[in-house]
Amino acid sequence: MPLLVMKFGGTSVADLARIRGAAEKVAAEVARGHDVIVVVSAMAGKTNELVGWVGSISPLYDAREYDAVVASGENVTAGLMALTLQEMGIPARSWHGWQVPLRTTSAHGSARILEIPRTNIDAKFREGMKVAVVAGFQGLSPEGRITTLGRGGSDTTAVAFAAAFDAVRCDIYTDVDGVYTTDPRITRKARKLDRIAFEEMLELASLGAKVLQTRSVELAMRYSVPLRVLSSFEETLETSGTIVCAEEELMETNVVAGVAHSRDEAKVTLTHVQDRPGIAAAIFGPLADAGVNVDMIVQNISDGGQTDMTFSCPVDQVLRAERAMTEAMARGDISFDALVADTEVAKVSVVGIGMRSHAGVAARMFAALAAEGINIKVITTSEIKISVLIDRKYMELAVQALHDAFELHRPG
Amino acid sequence: MPLLVMKFGGTSVADLARIRGAAEKVAAEVARGHDVIVVVSAMAGKTNELVGWVGSISPLYDAREYDAVVASGENVTAGLMALTLQEMGIPARSWHGWQVPLRTTSAHGSARILEIPRTNIDAKFREGMKVAVVAGFQGLSPEGRITTLGRGGSDTTAVAFAAAFDAVRCDIYTDVDGVYTTDPRITRKARKLDRIAFEEMLELASLGAKVLQTRSVELAMRYSVPLRVLSSFEETLETSGTIVCAEEELMETNVVAGVAHSRDEAKVTLTHVQDRPGIAAAIFGPLADAGVNVDMIVQNISDGGQTDMTFSCPVDQVLRAERAMTEAMARGDISFDALVADTEVAKVSVVGIGMRSHAGVAARMFAALAAEGINIKVITTSEIKISVLIDRKYMELAVQALHDAFELHRPG
Repeated sequence: MPLLVMKFGGTSVADLARIRGAAEKVAAEVARGHDVIVVVSAMAGKTNELVGWVGSISPLYDAREYDAVVASGENVTAGLMALTLQEMGIPARSWHGWQVPLRTTSAHGSARILEIPRTNIDAKFREGMKVAVVAGFQGLSPEGRITTLGRGGSDTTAVAFAAAFDAVRCDIYTDVDGVYTTDPRITRKARKLDRIAFEEMLELASLGAKVLQTRSVELAMRYSVPLRVLSSFEETLETSGTIVCAEEELMETNVVAGVAHSRDEAKVTLTHVQDRPGIAAAIFGPLADAGVNVDMIVQNISDGGQTDMTFSCPVDQVLRAERAMTEAMARGDISFDALVADTEVAKVSVVGIGMRSHAGVAARMFAALAAEGINIKVITTSEIKISVLIDRKYMELAVQALHDAFELHRPG
Repeated sequence: MPLLVMKFGGTSVADLARIRGAAEKVAAEVARGHDVIVVVSAMAGKTNELVGWVGSISPLYDAREYDAVVASGENVTAGLMALTLQEMGIPARSWHGWQVPLRTTSAHGSARILEIPRTNIDAKFREGMKVAVVAGFQGLSPEGRITTLGRGGSDTTAVAFAAAFDAVRCDIYTDVDGVYTTDPRITRKARKLDRIAFEEMLELASLGAKVLQTRSVELAMRYSVPLRVLSSFEETLETSGTIVCAEEELMETNVVAGVAHSRDEAKVTLTHVQDRPGIAAAIFGPLADAGVNVDMIVQNISDGGQTDMTFSCPVDQVLRAERAMTEAMARGDISFDALVADTEVAKVSVVGIGMRSHAGVAARMFAALAAEGINIKVITTSEIKISVLIDRKYMELAVQALHDAFELHRPG
C-alpha cells in the first residue's frame, strides 16, 4: 500500500477544531488508498509557553531538561490527533519519539537524526493500523534521554520519516498555499508555482522565503523525497500547493523561478585595510566568533598594498561587527582607516536552475534595475542565483521590475 | 546515604514560584544528608485541561491515547523541578515513567504498579546525582505504551518508590498541614495529630477525610513505609505534619484518634421484603450493577416471613437505587411494599485502634449523642470504627459532642 507522510505545523493544529480539520485531510488520503504517517507540531503557542518557563528558571539551563520539557507539546498533539482519527473510524495510534524510536545524536536542542528503524511502526501497519501519528521535533539519544531537533525540526522529522518509509511524497501543511514566484504582498502578479526544484527551494529558503526550513529541503533532496507545500485551511485538490522535487521531474520551466528579498540588511566597509595573505581570516574569524552572520563579501582591487573590504550582514548585527573589528585592531591583528556602515540597504535575488543553461540572466537583471534608476551596491552570484544589494527604499520597485522582466506571472 | 521520598501535589507546583518553594524544601533535605527522590504532579489545572480536550474529542476515547496525552503534565513539572534544583546548585535530573522504567499492568487509566527496578536511578546516584525528580501518576505497560495510575496515582507513585528504594520515609507535601482529630471547620478544638496508625488513616480516608488516598495508605502499610503528611506552604520543622506509621511505632494514644463525617448520605428502606435465603444478594446485586455505592446495611428481625431492609448510599444515587429496585421487583426477583428514602441524613464516625483493647467506646459515643438529643438511625461497627447515621442538621453538633466526649483536644 503506498505510504504518504503528512506534516501539520502549529497553526494547523492550534485547537481541537483545527486538529479535526487536519484529521479530515488525513482521512481523505486514507480513503484514496494510502497508509499515512502524520507528523505533528505542538499546538500554536504551547512551545513558547514551555520555552518561556525553562528560560525564566535559568538562562543557562540544562539542555537535556529543556528537551524533556519542550517535547511534551508535540506529545499532546499526537495523542489528540490519534483520538480524533479514531473518532472518525480510522485505526490510528500516537508515537512519541522514544517509542519509534527515532534515534538522534546527543546534541540536545539541535540533535541530528541518526536512524529511524521501521520495525515497530511497520508491525502496527501489518496489524491494520492505517495512520501512525508521530510527535515531531523529538527523538531519543544514545543515553536514553529525550532530544529535540531544533529549528525546523518538525519539517525535518517528516522528511526523515518519508525517506525511512519510502513514502510516495511528504506533504507539508502550513498556513500558505504554496511557493510563490515572489512575495504576493509586494506584487499582485506573484504566481504560485506548481513545481520547483530542490536547489531552487534551498536558495529561496536561505534568501528569506519562510515556507520551508533549509534543513528539511536538504534532507528531501539527499533522499529524493518529493515534498508538497500546501495550505491546511483550503480544500486539498490534486493540483493544490507546490511540489518541490528533483530537477529531472520538472517540465521545461522559466529560466528564473522566483525573486527573493531580504529587507533588513546592512553594508559594512573597512577602508584602507592592509592587503596581505591571511587578512580575510583575520577579519572574518573575529566576526564569526562575535556571532555576525556575514553574507556577501567584496574585496576591491589592491592599491599600494591596501584595499577596501565590504561585507553585508543583518542590520541588527552592525554594532556587534563594529565592536569585533575595533577589538581586532586594538589587538594589532588588522588595521583599517574607517568602518563605514550603510544600514539602509536590502538584498534582492533571482533564483533559477535555468540559469545554468541560459546566458544573459545577469545582464537582463542589471538592465531591468538600471531602467528604474536603481543603483547596485554589491553583487554576488552562484550557479543558480544572482543577488544584489540596493538602497532599501527601492526594494519593492526592484522586485516588481525583476518579476516583470523575467515574465514570472506567466507559467513556465 | 539515607534516601527520602518527597511528593508534591498540583497546588504545590502550580507555578514557577511554587516549584521554587518546593525545590527549597528538597534542598534542605539534601543539606541534611539525604539522597532524595522527588515525585511531582502536574501543575494545578494542567491535567484538567488535557482531560477536557480528550473528553471533548470523544466520550468513548481510547484509554491508551488518553494516558499518552494526560501523562505529559507530570513530565513538564519534572523537567521544571530538575532545572530549578540545578539552578540552586543541586545535581538533579528528571525521569519520566518509561525511563525508570516504572512497569505497570496494561489497565490504561487505572494501571497497577508491577515493578520499579532500581538499576537506572541507582547508577545516577552513584555518579553523584543527589535528586531524582520522577513524574508521578505514570508508568510503562508491557506493550511499551504510557499508562496512568488513576485517582491518587501520584501519592501511590511516591509510596511505591519509597518501598522500592528502602526510603527512610515518604513525605507527602500538600495544602494542609497534617491529619486532624476532626474537620477544623466544624470545631476549633480540632487538633493536629503528631502520629496516626496506618489502619486509622485508612478508615479516616474511606470515611471522607481527603488528606491521603486509600490506595497509597494501603501500599505504605503493606511495605511498612512511614508516611508524613505536611504543608508545602509552611516552613518544615522536625515536628511538622502528621506521621502515618505502624501501630507499634505509636506511643500510648487516645482510645479514639479522630471523628470523621460524611454529609451527603441517604437512608433507603425497603419495607416488608420477603425474608428468604438469597434475598440480600437479590437486592444488593442489582444495586451494585446500577453503580450504587451501598455503605451501611441493616436488616430488621423477621416478622411472619417478612422483614425491613435498610441501607445507606450517597444522596445523589438514590434515584438510581429506586430504579434498580423497581426493575428487580418487575422482574419478580424481589418483592417489597414500599421504598422509603430519607435524603436528610449524615454519617458520623469515631476511629481508633485503641477500641480493640478498650471496652465501652460505643456506650460513651451513644451517651454523648443522647445527651444532645440526637437520634441514631443506623449503626455499624468495625474493629476500630463506629459509624452512626443521624439527621443531617445535627451533624456538626454530633462531631463537636464526640470530639469533647473523647477529649480529642488533649494530646494522647
